[in-house]
Amino acid sequence: MSNKEKGANAERELIHLFNNTDGWSAIRIAGSGSSKYPDPDILAGNAIRRIAIECKATREDKKYFSQEDLDQLRKFCQTFGAEAWLAIRLPRQPWYFIMPEDLAAAGESFVISKEILQRKGLQFEELTK
Amino acid sequence: MSNKEKGANAERELIHLFNNTDGWSAIRIAGSGSSKYPDPDILAGNAIRRIAIECKATREDKKYFSQEDLDQLRKFCQTFGAEAWLAIRLPRQPWYFIMPEDLAAAGESFVISKEILQRKGLQFEELTK
Repeated sequence: MSNKEKGANAERELIHLFNNTDGWSAIRIAGSGSSKYPDPDILAGNAIRRIAIECKATREDKKYFSQEDLDQLRKFCQTFGAEAWLAIRLPRQPWYFIMPEDLAAAGESFVISKEILQRKGLQFEELTK
Repeated sequence: MSNKEKGANAERELIHLFNNTDGWSAIRIAGSGSSKYPDPDILAGNAIRRIAIECKATREDKKYFSQEDLDQLRKFCQTFGAEAWLAIRLPRQPWYFIMPEDLAAAGESFVISKEILQRKGLQFEELTK
């Protein structure tokens, strides 16, 4: 399976989680990351909240994000009126949701470790309750 | 060009219109119409409005929608908290935006003619002002 397919599968997993949760709806964004406009991977919402999600499943025990990744997500959220979240799944872990502000600077990029993710991240049920 | 490609091109045209308009942002929804969940073609928004759009360019001088098309759009909008709009472009016409309620019943489906579209539809600048 290509990285692109793996990414799409991870996104579909989250879409199912949201769409199977009462009052929530979610969509995958076409060509996210490849279009010239800033856009996240997923947009989820209920009657009162709108959540834009950059979504990453990884085999490592930490995940890096570039400044540009985070800027693009924030820019979209500001224009569109949505909350900015990163969804991260590390090996043998559930999906965790974390805000860009909770990432630690690591040189020119930003990193989230398993420990910080478990401490500051929300699990799906907490995010959507 | 396949119908699918034509549809994607029509959607991209609208995405550019929104993204080039101050304060607006828009995204194409991946796999819309083919996933098992109700979803529109495009979602556009600014800080206060969220607009879900089913988008059709046609060579005919009218356009039909099935009851199911409209139900799916309404259902998504209700859960997600968005306004429901149809974007229609007939030959040698600009894009017009119209609400599902403004379509006329035609047997088991619904239809919009050029005349009604011009009378009740909004042009892009009116929709987004």
